[in-house]
Amino acid sequence: MESRLIGIQLLLLLLLGSVESAFRAHRRYTPDWPSVDSRPLPDWFDKAKFGVFVHWGVFSVPAFGSEWFWWHWQGQRAPAYMRFMSDNYPPGFSYADFGPLFTAHFFDPEKWADLFQASGAKYVVLTAKHHEGFTNWPSPVSWNWNSQDVGPHRDLVGELGTAVRKRNIRYGLYHSLFEWFHPLYLFDKNNGFKTQHFVTAKTMPELYDLVNRYKPDLIWSDGDWESPDTYWNSTDFLSWLYNDSPVKDEVVVNDRWGMNCSCRHGGYYNCEDKFKPSSLPDHKWEMCSTIDKRSWGYRRNMVISDVADEAEIISELVQTVSLGGNYLLNIGPTKDGLIVPIFQERLLAVGKWLSINGEAIYASKPWRVQLEKNTSVWYTSKGSVVYAIFLHWPENGVLNLISPNATSTAQITMLGIQKDLKWSTNPQKGLLIYLPQLPPSALPVEFAWTVKMTGVE
Amino acid sequence: MESRLIGIQLLLLLLLGSVESAFRAHRRYTPDWPSVDSRPLPDWFDKAKFGVFVHWGVFSVPAFGSEWFWWHWQGQRAPAYMRFMSDNYPPGFSYADFGPLFTAHFFDPEKWADLFQASGAKYVVLTAKHHEGFTNWPSPVSWNWNSQDVGPHRDLVGELGTAVRKRNIRYGLYHSLFEWFHPLYLFDKNNGFKTQHFVTAKTMPELYDLVNRYKPDLIWSDGDWESPDTYWNSTDFLSWLYNDSPVKDEVVVNDRWGMNCSCRHGGYYNCEDKFKPSSLPDHKWEMCSTIDKRSWGYRRNMVISDVADEAEIISELVQTVSLGGNYLLNIGPTKDGLIVPIFQERLLAVGKWLSINGEAIYASKPWRVQLEKNTSVWYTSKGSVVYAIFLHWPENGVLNLISPNATSTAQITMLGIQKDLKWSTNPQKGLLIYLPQLPPSALPVEFAWTVKMTGVE
Amino acid sequence: MESRLIGIQLLLLLLLGSVESAFRAHRRYTPDWPSVDSRPLPDWFDKAKFGVFVHWGVFSVPAFGSEWFWWHWQGQRAPAYMRFMSDNYPPGFSYADFGPLFTAHFFDPEKWADLFQASGAKYVVLTAKHHEGFTNWPSPVSWNWNSQDVGPHRDLVGELGTAVRKRNIRYGLYHSLFEWFHPLYLFDKNNGFKTQHFVTAKTMPELYDLVNRYKPDLIWSDGDWESPDTYWNSTDFLSWLYNDSPVKDEVVVNDRWGMNCSCRHGGYYNCEDKFKPSSLPDHKWEMCSTIDKRSWGYRRNMVISDVADEAEIISELVQTVSLGGNYLLNIGPTKDGLIVPIFQERLLAVGKWLSINGEAIYASKPWRVQLEKNTSVWYTSKGSVVYAIFLHWPENGVLNLISPNATSTAQITMLGIQKDLKWSTNPQKGLLIYLPQLPPSALPVEFAWTVKMTGVE
Amino acid sequence: MESRLIGIQLLLLLLLGSVESAFRAHRRYTPDWPSVDSRPLPDWFDKAKFGVFVHWGVFSVPAFGSEWFWWHWQGQRAPAYMRFMSDNYPPGFSYADFGPLFTAHFFDPEKWADLFQASGAKYVVLTAKHHEGFTNWPSPVSWNWNSQDVGPHRDLVGELGTAVRKRNIRYGLYHSLFEWFHPLYLFDKNNGFKTQHFVTAKTMPELYDLVNRYKPDLIWSDGDWESPDTYWNSTDFLSWLYNDSPVKDEVVVNDRWGMNCSCRHGGYYNCEDKFKPSSLPDHKWEMCSTIDKRSWGYRRNMVISDVADEAEIISELVQTVSLGGNYLLNIGPTKDGLIVPIFQERLLAVGKWLSINGEAIYASKPWRVQLEKNTSVWYTSKGSVVYAIFLHWPENGVLNLISPNATSTAQITMLGIQKDLKWSTNPQKGLLIYLPQLPPSALPVEFAWTVKMTGVE
Repeated sequence: MESRLIGIQLLLLLLLGSVESAFRAHRRYTPDWPSVDSRPLPDWFDKAKFGVFVHWGVFSVPAFGSEWFWWHWQGQRAPAYMRFMSDNYPPGFSYADFGPLFTAHFFDPEKWADLFQASGAKYVVLTAKHHEGFTNWPSPVSWNWNSQDVGPHRDLVGELGTAVRKRNIRYGLYHSLFEWFHPLYLFDKNNGFKTQHFVTAKTMPELYDLVNRYKPDLIWSDGDWESPDTYWNSTDFLSWLYNDSPVKDEVVVNDRWGMNCSCRHGGYYNCEDKFKPSSLPDHKWEMCSTIDKRSWGYRRNMVISDVADEAEIISELVQTVSLGGNYLLNIGPTKDGLIVPIFQERLLAVGKWLSINGEAIYASKPWRVQLEKNTSVWYTSKGSVVYAIFLHWPENGVLNLISPNATSTAQITMLGIQKDLKWSTNPQKGLLIYLPQLPPSALPVEFAWTVKMTGVE
Repeated sequence: MESRLIGIQLLLLLLLGSVESAFRAHRRYTPDWPSVDSRPLPDWFDKAKFGVFVHWGVFSVPAFGSEWFWWHWQGQRAPAYMRFMSDNYPPGFSYADFGPLFTAHFFDPEKWADLFQASGAKYVVLTAKHHEGFTNWPSPVSWNWNSQDVGPHRDLVGELGTAVRKRNIRYGLYHSLFEWFHPLYLFDKNNGFKTQHFVTAKTMPELYDLVNRYKPDLIWSDGDWESPDTYWNSTDFLSWLYNDSPVKDEVVVNDRWGMNCSCRHGGYYNCEDKFKPSSLPDHKWEMCSTIDKRSWGYRRNMVISDVADEAEIISELVQTVSLGGNYLLNIGPTKDGLIVPIFQERLLAVGKWLSINGEAIYASKPWRVQLEKNTSVWYTSKGSVVYAIFLHWPENGVLNLISPNATSTAQITMLGIQKDLKWSTNPQKGLLIYLPQLPPSALPVEFAWTVKMTGVE
Repeated sequence: MESRLIGIQLLLLLLLGSVESAFRAHRRYTPDWPSVDSRPLPDWFDKAKFGVFVHWGVFSVPAFGSEWFWWHWQGQRAPAYMRFMSDNYPPGFSYADFGPLFTAHFFDPEKWADLFQASGAKYVVLTAKHHEGFTNWPSPVSWNWNSQDVGPHRDLVGELGTAVRKRNIRYGLYHSLFEWFHPLYLFDKNNGFKTQHFVTAKTMPELYDLVNRYKPDLIWSDGDWESPDTYWNSTDFLSWLYNDSPVKDEVVVNDRWGMNCSCRHGGYYNCEDKFKPSSLPDHKWEMCSTIDKRSWGYRRNMVISDVADEAEIISELVQTVSLGGNYLLNIGPTKDGLIVPIFQERLLAVGKWLSINGEAIYASKPWRVQLEKNTSVWYTSKGSVVYAIFLHWPENGVLNLISPNATSTAQITMLGIQKDLKWSTNPQKGLLIYLPQLPPSALPVEFAWTVKMTGVE
Repeated sequence: MESRLIGIQLLLLLLLGSVESAFRAHRRYTPDWPSVDSRPLPDWFDKAKFGVFVHWGVFSVPAFGSEWFWWHWQGQRAPAYMRFMSDNYPPGFSYADFGPLFTAHFFDPEKWADLFQASGAKYVVLTAKHHEGFTNWPSPVSWNWNSQDVGPHRDLVGELGTAVRKRNIRYGLYHSLFEWFHPLYLFDKNNGFKTQHFVTAKTMPELYDLVNRYKPDLIWSDGDWESPDTYWNSTDFLSWLYNDSPVKDEVVVNDRWGMNCSCRHGGYYNCEDKFKPSSLPDHKWEMCSTIDKRSWGYRRNMVISDVADEAEIISELVQTVSLGGNYLLNIGPTKDGLIVPIFQERLLAVGKWLSINGEAIYASKPWRVQLEKNTSVWYTSKGSVVYAIFLHWPENGVLNLISPNATSTAQITMLGIQKDLKWSTNPQKGLLIYLPQLPPSALPVEFAWTVKMTGVE
């Protein structure tokens, strides 16, 4: 209780603007987009390359359809959702009634963190609050609609953060600006967003609280799209975050702040749905993908045909990194705090692949060419070293690369294999690399093998 | 949804002070105690004499101990409450988890109102919000902790008000200023009430909303005692209420506003626990009593020995009215919206008694003497008529009154009996009234008979 | 577990007929109606006069309509019951699903027994099993559909019996022969009751178990009506019960055994719905009545207008005893084991009345006249003493009785009043008794006063 | 209801032995082990080779530990189980209370059957009743403890059978003879199994009902071990089953009938835990294995390290078939009727492997050699064709087999590859088969490749 009060105290002090650090070495940002956008992206993020995204909340209780359950049910009144409710719950059962059923009983943050570590992730992002408004921490302005008062009766955000950081994994928080059904939000919306009661009473206090309490390395902002950045006080908050917050130097913030999409502060562009190779090389970006292709939250009726297989996942990871992005792979834990085996298996498969090929991924940079034309060979680089990751093994056992120009001192190996590979050059075809002839079980990985080249240009 | 938004709109307009009626006939009150205390008590209240109090909320779900369940359980950690929870609920079950179980399934406001009407009550007071903070109406600042989002999924305050008013019964709302466990309240408290975050974010918006939405005839304020009236913005709110609110002329407010107890605005003093005859005749007051003597909310393990019997209730009513007060008799409905038969029986017994003796109660005034010395005879009056209500039938059939001086034209009857009673005077003993000799079944009531006298002084 | 096994052992030994007492003083009954009907009624029952009936089972969970809930819902598919279910429970919710909700949490057999004792009851009858088939004891042939495995997880029959007998109150068990929905019963029924699988597998084992385990003083048999006594093995069981069971001398059995209603074994005729004065004086009978006139089991939506008032109850008791019957007054406890205050109040009112007038009730016999013609005066007698219980106080204060012939030594008093009453005789009007002139509060009871006469014929 | 009654009717007719087919072509078995053991194993079973086992019941609700939950909890009182209950359920919560929570809401037998078909299974075995005694069909002697009355409110056994048979998959039923906590079983046990009340009242009626109602192709009997075959009436039932039941010609029964393990009727020996190569070739046997290595029923806290991977499963299948056995692979659906993705994935992996290699499995026979010494190459055969399934790809690309003697006309191919393989013989090393040199993606399967040989001896 005491610590909770202190949390509130800090929050309110900051809201009142009464605390300022007297001396600052770094430059200060002003609350406008050109200024906050001029802040450089913290270095750790660009090097991380691979993170795990966790969608967990009250939507994990019905675990039907997707994390948008509430909206499909009561916003759209979609027949499948209406029927699911009438088939399984008494009349009048409300979304709030799901709260107590979100037990998190088996939630063991140490085990989760072990799994994330084994997956090779360098950062983990948890939904602190999704569009439903339920906070996974004891928010002081979400009384009886948070994980301390209802359901888990635990500080999920805090517990996971502690476990993750013990393993030197960075910790980010997803936060939805809007809430579908919050009465104050609906009121502002009805006023054409000329009033800001919701922002004042809910959004800002919670954002300040999250930052001061958990010191996140990343804020994954979402839910901005119905209203402009001026409604959300975006630049005010961001300038505080970059000037005076406890995470001013390290925090990464994505671009969902109600601003025009062409504005990207911190040079960070997030895209859920599609690659952004055209934006290279001037911006950093993140590709978000979810193992259960139909939902980000847990679906109890998930079927294997909706689950991305290991090859798809590795393939996405490789392409994203080659194009200079980060890959954030999502799982949805169950209402009782478990990560089901199919998710475990996928994460461990990535981890196994990275244990051999991580050298070509972590802290890598895009090379001058990203994709070898008409192939599925992707390049990355680190200093003068160039990595070619080929998704399919060539039928004749010879990997043919046009783009690299081999010098006489060129040396070529395959990650996971001890001895050098033979190679030659050919006027028409460029570099020819003779892959090792090995039985399947002797190959270092089952797909997406990496050739490492030095002395190429 | 639409009407809810309009409600919020009104609320916010008023919070901003942007609406003022351009013309006012009555004088205006300033936000200080002398001014608000100078407002006269609306006439209807002093005439009503008898009301029904209804304690209903999430505490009706455990229905154990009393409406202070949450506090005894988690504030004091009283062993009986700890044991009740560990015996009946899984570990980690929270008070918020009771919310969905507050179904109000059988709540039929028309039937409740019929019962209240049959009891002879002239006003009904419902707990709009008790110390637990759960609002029995869709408060815009108590999201997912109100009766629309959780449990009943209905506007209890609104529905009961509509039904009660159809029968010309006045409607009052109980409202707790503080909330035991609200994080903003605890924050302010920890600051020695030097901050007012809770008042700004919760108390004031809800009070304005209640007044504008339901136009209560009475506000039964409670929960002030931990902090001074300045914390609660008491005089600001009251001056608005008396100057500009939609109920400015009719509303009655009790004295629980954090002020020193000797200050009584509106001349209205409320006392739960004890008579206040010494305060007569200069102040109006109200006696609150509860049928289940151990609790105001419903107790599932209520036993008959804790239930006030009809004679006790009538006796309290008579004394209170004789001393110039109002009598507010409490019941606690069940979580599914029923008023159990024992409460029905007591209320109907009062109604039956009042159907004969109401003449001596409603709109009566205290007489120059209240209690006939060394007896259980209580006086009331109406104009020149004096009523003597005697709780016990004299053994010899002769009612002996010292205080009234009978003139020669004096006429004496018993309410419920057609023909005049014989009487005489006696130098020592005063007035001797010869009661009718009737078998028990022919008496108009079973206890507390009323003698009506004209021509006495 | 051990004692349960012993119970089964005894049961099975007896089913196999392998145990016989070697020597018997009393005559033996043969398994036919003339023989079992010839058994005299045990003396205790005729003297008891007043008992309490308790209907408690899974039907106490929905507590809607009546103890026939299951039948109305799924047998008849009555709209009100269908709606109640669809309004409150998810689709597919079955009657069996109510089982776990029958918690009996507050069930305190000592407190129940205290209440029954205070009511003046000389025997208590509990529903060991109603038509729903759920057994309130750990029946070995009702696995997972009994109070030990499901819901209370207690032996309700055993616990109440122990508490009641500590207070020298006799203990009876209600038992339904048929079960609405038992598949073996339905199978037999479909066969026109030419097969007896249900009787063999369920009814007989349970009846033997009940008798051997709890040694009931009374078996209140019900549910016979769809099939003949031969189906139920009635005379076999009864002859065992009267010849060889542990309760052979004391047990009382009512007439619900599938036989023609004109056959009454043991001279005991039970009637729920109507008086049987015509059957006097040759048969003993019992009048069953229920405080909640609409249901025998608890109804959560019981209203006071359905509750018998004290005068009705006392009046029924008086008439029943005057006509030679026993009066068995029913209550329905709640699913969590409480007897609600309205029932407590009624039982205590009977107890208070009997504390004054019990002399005219317990162990009394019908007098040669039962009802004084054209009045509401009922007679009972004990040896040469005659009691006249008058339900209404005569307007003129004089009780006028035609039937008793007063001798010169006649002495007349009122129970609860010390001194003798004055009386005279009148050629036309018979005996005139001058009642005491007392204020209401000085009367011994509020209705149904007893005049005790010696020296009358 | 009607069809249910007919089911009971049939059952009882058969119990009474009143129906006999007048004419029988086949020989009759007498109720003794030599006779019932002399029955030949129905041909379909020996050819099937691969089946899916489904453990589903009330144990799927807690889904903790294993399908032996009840025993560990209340039989052994194992601390982990005690704690799981006290952490998650109110005191007094019983195993029976889990019943209503077994909803089977999403159970879609068509989808299950599609999955089983895609897995290549030729038979499916469902737990009709496990040791908990809960029947997954409307058993007439398990009232209110079966899937029709409680929980799913459906006939699970019937529904799955219909769906499976539509796809020409054989249907078997697992049935536990004993029930841990059935009072009649405990009674018999306490008597040293000298009484048979449980067998008469429960086991036999249910077995006859299952056979007559669902006509299973296989009865997977379990739970015999505490008592001898004479207690279970084993030979009586089996002789009826083989002589007169509707499945007399086709039904397969395993050896769990309380008999000495060396007796194997029908030549069928089942082994859960270990291979039985020594028993070859004179007996047929079945290897049961479960995908979640720690439980047969669903475990909500299953982790990937307890899940058998595809290579382990294929490897077990291959060995079992090579040794003449059948492989029955288990899954545990959830309480709401879903087969989680990890199980789907494993079953589909088997199906994919069998789509290439099924020729070497279905209807195959053990070859004269089963395992090539010092290798992981297993043989099967079909007529003159010999199959060698090698679990590991030889490093040098040459498969070396000692046992087969190649004739000059020998022809060797790999299943899934079009063209013939080259081979040679070597005096020391025997047959040398030159495997195709293909990239991993061009291989027909990822492990356990099959070489098909004709013209070898």
